[in-house]
Amino acid sequence: MAIIVQKFGGTSVADLDRIRAVADKVQAAVAAGDKVAVVLSAMAGVTNQLVAWVSEAGAGPDSSEYDSVVSTGEQVTTGLLACVLKSRGLKARSWLGWQLPIRTDGVHGRARITEIETGALKAGLKDGEVQIVAGFQGIAKSGRIVTLGRGGSDITAVALSAALDAARCDIYTDVDGVYTSDPRVVAKARKLDKITYEEMLEMASLGAKVLQTRSVELAMKHDVPLQVLSSFVDAPGTLVVNEEDMLEQEMVSGITYSRDEAKVTLTRVPDRPGVAAAIFGPLSDAEINVDMIVQNVSEDGKATDLTFTVAKGDLAAAIKVLENKRDELGFAHLVQDPNVVKISVIGVGMRSHAGVAQKMFQVMAEKGINIQVISTSEIKISVLVAEDYTELAVRSLHSAYNLDQE
Amino acid sequence: MAIIVQKFGGTSVADLDRIRAVADKVQAAVAAGDKVAVVLSAMAGVTNQLVAWVSEAGAGPDSSEYDSVVSTGEQVTTGLLACVLKSRGLKARSWLGWQLPIRTDGVHGRARITEIETGALKAGLKDGEVQIVAGFQGIAKSGRIVTLGRGGSDITAVALSAALDAARCDIYTDVDGVYTSDPRVVAKARKLDKITYEEMLEMASLGAKVLQTRSVELAMKHDVPLQVLSSFVDAPGTLVVNEEDMLEQEMVSGITYSRDEAKVTLTRVPDRPGVAAAIFGPLSDAEINVDMIVQNVSEDGKATDLTFTVAKGDLAAAIKVLENKRDELGFAHLVQDPNVVKISVIGVGMRSHAGVAQKMFQVMAEKGINIQVISTSEIKISVLVAEDYTELAVRSLHSAYNLDQE
Repeated sequence: MAIIVQKFGGTSVADLDRIRAVADKVQAAVAAGDKVAVVLSAMAGVTNQLVAWVSEAGAGPDSSEYDSVVSTGEQVTTGLLACVLKSRGLKARSWLGWQLPIRTDGVHGRARITEIETGALKAGLKDGEVQIVAGFQGIAKSGRIVTLGRGGSDITAVALSAALDAARCDIYTDVDGVYTSDPRVVAKARKLDKITYEEMLEMASLGAKVLQTRSVELAMKHDVPLQVLSSFVDAPGTLVVNEEDMLEQEMVSGITYSRDEAKVTLTRVPDRPGVAAAIFGPLSDAEINVDMIVQNVSEDGKATDLTFTVAKGDLAAAIKVLENKRDELGFAHLVQDPNVVKISVIGVGMRSHAGVAQKMFQVMAEKGINIQVISTSEIKISVLVAEDYTELAVRSLHSAYNLDQE
Repeated sequence: MAIIVQKFGGTSVADLDRIRAVADKVQAAVAAGDKVAVVLSAMAGVTNQLVAWVSEAGAGPDSSEYDSVVSTGEQVTTGLLACVLKSRGLKARSWLGWQLPIRTDGVHGRARITEIETGALKAGLKDGEVQIVAGFQGIAKSGRIVTLGRGGSDITAVALSAALDAARCDIYTDVDGVYTSDPRVVAKARKLDKITYEEMLEMASLGAKVLQTRSVELAMKHDVPLQVLSSFVDAPGTLVVNEEDMLEQEMVSGITYSRDEAKVTLTRVPDRPGVAAAIFGPLSDAEINVDMIVQNVSEDGKATDLTFTVAKGDLAAAIKVLENKRDELGFAHLVQDPNVVKISVIGVGMRSHAGVAQKMFQVMAEKGINIQVISTSEIKISVLVAEDYTELAVRSLHSAYNLDQE
């Protein structure tokens, strides 16, 4: 009689037929003897419409009125699912953030959950009543509604799983799991049965947008087993678990790519202490995230070339910031290139296997792909290459690391 | 520095442009030095859509989930108006039913307000902050959201006016006031400057659907001066006040008609005690409202003819109920006629003027209109006539009582 939390995203509750399909999943879990808590998003498109209205009405996402308006979408879907389940003879009720309550730090538009009151939920679950909780929302000390920001419903589901000590948190979405690579690029990509939190985090932050980073971090912190699965097909998905829960560890679990990269090179930057801070400080002040950074060894000890990447959308702003500081920074040229892609090999197995990076470089060399920038972490190697080589690079690496489906 | 409550209906907040027009009205009142509380409905059509979804999902209006879903429309409009006002530099905030709270008896789908907590509202008003309250909703002791039923936002506005001891409650709608008759029928109908609560109640219950009966009753009970006015034109509307506040009382203030009537006649009903109860009891059990009732004096002391009216939509059900009881009731024939209209002359002045009814009968006779049923109250005379005569009857009476616009 385990507690299971099921979370359904916007496409899974897009209309009443879809909500009925969600009810099928809930009903199956109840029939299997599980105690079920459900977290729902708003109908697909609804939150965007509400955000557009608020923005047209002159308010930003940091306002209490924004949150009051955009939190209504989940109120609709939770109520409707409760109606459908009850019409089928199941016990069910919906909960809004302020009703439980789901307490937060009160920051409008991107609040963090501080505590979920679970007394009533546990009593309901014990009584066999399906507990349906509105995702994405909570309450501030002031009594105002807050929302949790992007991916907020996933956060609600994971936090609720932790609070209820759930056996598993099933994240139903429009894909049927986590793949070794993007199936649109790699036809032979295969679904992973299991993946570690760390790998999932790298995947998420590198553009495989199945789960938001914040919710994976939260699941890892509270040791909540996640399952990513499709609400449209009836099959197991991908389990996201602790490294210890992986029976057998493959060396590499996935190849990802991100096209949202732009490269900036500053040539002949004076090679003196504090120059990096002088360059990246103003970028940080302008809220521009810098990702990969490479500084070449200075040949003559006087000047060096510095290369870094930013999101494509930040390129123009980054250049403006740097041009404004040109005299102070003293570089010779600023070279920009928006036509780059970041290719990454991810796997916790790297920690115990030598030669993972070497194989990557070898594959790139064999295919004649020039590596522009390299960066590595404990479980990931990323290279920046010309965007035209994206598919070639990803497919070649996918084969080289034996990830291809048979 | 009077407190004014302004209520705007669904067509007045149908989109952002309309909400901006509402903000203009609020801003004008604030500029005039008033302390303004605003009550809003949902965008026109939104509540109907939500009700349709809930009903399709298998729940009726008596359920907690119905209320949770259908109360979201007002949450959207109140938040948006607050955004618009704040973007113009005014102080404003929105309030949901559970936030104030607006306490109710907890009956889902048609709750009655028992108390409105006004401490925070009054503090905000004193501080010059516009207080925007979601109409149509409140909270049950259980902590669940409830809605107030049809015309619920008017109820919220009137109850709030009473609780705040407001100088006036302005009901903005899509008509510019209360008319002496339906302008679609009587081209010479004119807008009334003032009308009493009692007259308004008769008008409302007789089909002049400007204000719901419940909200007028509530205003009368708490002596809240109402004003019905248009949100689309900038002109005074109609004030609804106590009889004592009418400087000059016209004999008749309006002519109304209701086509939603059907006539049933039972012939040769045995004339014995208890027969009326035997007929109307089963109709009442079937939740069929009977309106006008006429029982002719029995000629032979043995049997009488009984005529009554029901709403057109209830006619078939009423006949079924009566046919099932035919043996018990012992009537000879059941004659039905759905092609009737009820024409009413309304005016508190009737109390002190003789001859009002006589003039009505005279006009009908002059125009050759046969009166089928008559019923009277202290401030109203109604007659049932063939539906074809509707326009002729209403226009003739409107002229006869000197209501025509010059």
